[in-house]
Amino acid sequence: MASVPPTGRTRVRRLPQRAVYHRDDIYAILDEGFLCHVGFVIDAQPFVIPTNYARQGDEILIHGSAASRMVRALAAGVDVCVTVTLVDGLVLARSPFHHSVNYRSVVILGKARLVSDPGEKLEALRCLTDHIVPGRWDEVRQPTEQELKATSVLSLPLAEVSAKVRHGPPVDDQSDLGLPVWAGVVPLRSLPGAPIGAEDLMPGTPPIDLNRFDRRRP
Amino acid sequence: MASVPPTGRTRVRRLPQRAVYHRDDIYAILDEGFLCHVGFVIDAQPFVIPTNYARQGDEILIHGSAASRMVRALAAGVDVCVTVTLVDGLVLARSPFHHSVNYRSVVILGKARLVSDPGEKLEALRCLTDHIVPGRWDEVRQPTEQELKATSVLSLPLAEVSAKVRHGPPVDDQSDLGLPVWAGVVPLRSLPGAPIGAEDLMPGTPPIDLNRFDRRRP
Repeated sequence: MASVPPTGRTRVRRLPQRAVYHRDDIYAILDEGFLCHVGFVIDAQPFVIPTNYARQGDEILIHGSAASRMVRALAAGVDVCVTVTLVDGLVLARSPFHHSVNYRSVVILGKARLVSDPGEKLEALRCLTDHIVPGRWDEVRQPTEQELKATSVLSLPLAEVSAKVRHGPPVDDQSDLGLPVWAGVVPLRSLPGAPIGAEDLMPGTPPIDLNRFDRRRP
Repeated sequence: MASVPPTGRTRVRRLPQRAVYHRDDIYAILDEGFLCHVGFVIDAQPFVIPTNYARQGDEILIHGSAASRMVRALAAGVDVCVTVTLVDGLVLARSPFHHSVNYRSVVILGKARLVSDPGEKLEALRCLTDHIVPGRWDEVRQPTEQELKATSVLSLPLAEVSAKVRHGPPVDDQSDLGLPVWAGVVPLRSLPGAPIGAEDLMPGTPPIDLNRFDRRRP
């Protein structure tokens, strides 16, 4: 499996046994998630903004209003950090110190590029839409020129990237194992609930299939 | 209800109708979540690191290994941004442009303070533990001097803070309402699954009550 060589900035220093540098493993985390947190700096103040994303090949795509501060900053080529975090469970130990969270996170560093080619931009928007609901793009009305103009797409290469993963049971001190308190993992999963159809749905519109929202990829 | 006056940096500019500046509403979001993304800058490069947090009064507490890069940077008093995002649902519209996400997010700007008073630090650690599992602190073995030394606690005032919320159905163009495609909201919720007890649990240990993991606060 191809691995991404860590740089001085992406090498995991704390608990390096949790580091993941294999590209397939990193991409699997990115493909399961859809929410990222984008970090950038304006006037020495860092900002961290949540937004959705999609992976396309060796790039991460994000989009937003062409007028947004984040989009304008990223398009100007500032240094950026995009972080994706999946929380898999709460780890309950016999001492507070060994409590933990099972998670998978990816950190991407670099500079974004504004996607300006019209064909590439349209394909990127399709990718962003279909990443959240597979096949959605072909079901809905296509974007107008005005909508395309109002939306900017940014691409960040998956070059300087690393992941960190914790899984498995609590690791308690040997001397605490006799305590009569429950310890273990409480799994957490984000699950779709019953869909709430718009009030003005066309009569006879077929319901949405909830299986399309299962984010675990084969 | 007391409101937090927005500063030039926390005033919501994009879609200002989504802005929330009431302190009670902001605190309710913070109390429901437990994962934040911490943004800070080292050598002009922003980093965004996921970690857990708890609110205590008008402060946000985070903790970590005293040796971690994030903890050391924050303790040195750099500018920081802490963002908490709760995803409530996917909003499916009749056009890609009007697709959206229902969410509640809080952005906190400021400088953190290292909590050094031993009593305050212990209380902060209790708060961090009990925020994830109410009542957990009193069930488990108390921290040792060595564990306390290895863990740093940081506090960030909830002074420069704002929230942004989107909820409700898709807002489609009038001319798209006749399309025979499903539109509406697919709610998403993070739910606990069946607990996985540690293999070395003491015989007779009572199971953990899953109701303790319901994060919606009354």
